[in-house]
Amino acid sequence: MELNRQAIEGLERRRRAALINSITGFKSANLIGTVDEEGVTNLAIMSSLLHIGSHPPLLALVFRPDSVERHTLDNIRSTGAYTVNHVHRDMVDAAHQTAARYPREVSEFDAVGLHAEWVDGYSAPFVREANVRLAMELREEQVLTINGTHLVIGEIMRIDLPEPALLDSGALDPALADTVALTGLDSYYLGEPLQRMAYAKPDQPPRRL
Amino acid sequence: MELNRQAIEGLERRRRAALINSITGFKSANLIGTVDEEGVTNLAIMSSLLHIGSHPPLLALVFRPDSVERHTLDNIRSTGAYTVNHVHRDMVDAAHQTAARYPREVSEFDAVGLHAEWVDGYSAPFVREANVRLAMELREEQVLTINGTHLVIGEIMRIDLPEPALLDSGALDPALADTVALTGLDSYYLGEPLQRMAYAKPDQPPRRL
Repeated sequence: MELNRQAIEGLERRRRAALINSITGFKSANLIGTVDEEGVTNLAIMSSLLHIGSHPPLLALVFRPDSVERHTLDNIRSTGAYTVNHVHRDMVDAAHQTAARYPREVSEFDAVGLHAEWVDGYSAPFVREANVRLAMELREEQVLTINGTHLVIGEIMRIDLPEPALLDSGALDPALADTVALTGLDSYYLGEPLQRMAYAKPDQPPRRL
Repeated sequence: MELNRQAIEGLERRRRAALINSITGFKSANLIGTVDEEGVTNLAIMSSLLHIGSHPPLLALVFRPDSVERHTLDNIRSTGAYTVNHVHRDMVDAAHQTAARYPREVSEFDAVGLHAEWVDGYSAPFVREANVRLAMELREEQVLTINGTHLVIGEIMRIDLPEPALLDSGALDPALADTVALTGLDSYYLGEPLQRMAYAKPDQPPRRL
């Protein structure tokens, strides 16, 4: 099936959004925990977390333009802090529900039945139920001029994870942490390990570990 | 297991890179097809493809700073065109091998045994073996000042996909297209459907589809 630019444009609006949102394949599913200056906590599911550097450890998140209320972005700007919490298989219903448009004074933690946990003087709330959790500090915000999208870049200040989910290499195996993948806006998957590959070299054939 | 900033810094260099590269969870695995002005094709596996808008349909890719040769980025700049090709389960060995540092005059298509396909006057090569393929046109390049990373933003001009992999919503189910997920730098996964969720509303409990 081939869709050229015109055929893509010609799709019904919701079908086009569903297709384009899913066309990058598997994405991470994370709950972003924040708090506002009045102490109201906020929790929002996002699928745009992106690695942009290891040293220092930097991750980016994409926020849509200013057309709708963005409690999470407002809170990150005012406090400089946020947490990233992997969604695991038993949290999917609650995590997805954070996407509902609750009023600013309602905490999604309370609304969806997850629990805020305050750790070590970090000013943003962690999700107590999460297996993998990151404390982030805001480092840079950049606007993508092409469509007004905001790119928020933060530095990882702390990592909580289950030690049995670490591979020999030191990498996290998200399948062992029960972390789920998301595609589009609504479809959640478990990861089934297929293969691990050795470091690729030009003079050697591909080798599985 | 808790790692604070100091403990993260204290990890052996390769273990730190492995951990930070894997800490976002599941990522998409895509082959980026390009060609240079002498007609030498290039193919590179990347895991940083990110949705940044549906209308117009825009995707971003992250490229590391200028310290190493970056044939793909050079080609995108000089031709304005590239393709995105989902890696499927039978292509993992070949796809991973594109990460080896071949000299500029070597085409990774030839080196790893995949085939360039030229379609419709698009100036970048598709991967013939791929099930899901996108033709992209460069729209914007932005440098992230914090670490010199380049963000390349392109518009989707064409989508090829297997029609049976479309869900009722119009979204692509990457599991039905045999698309794999990647974590870190070397671990490939299949997606096992867990659950699909209805649109979340504040006054309704979460509902599975």
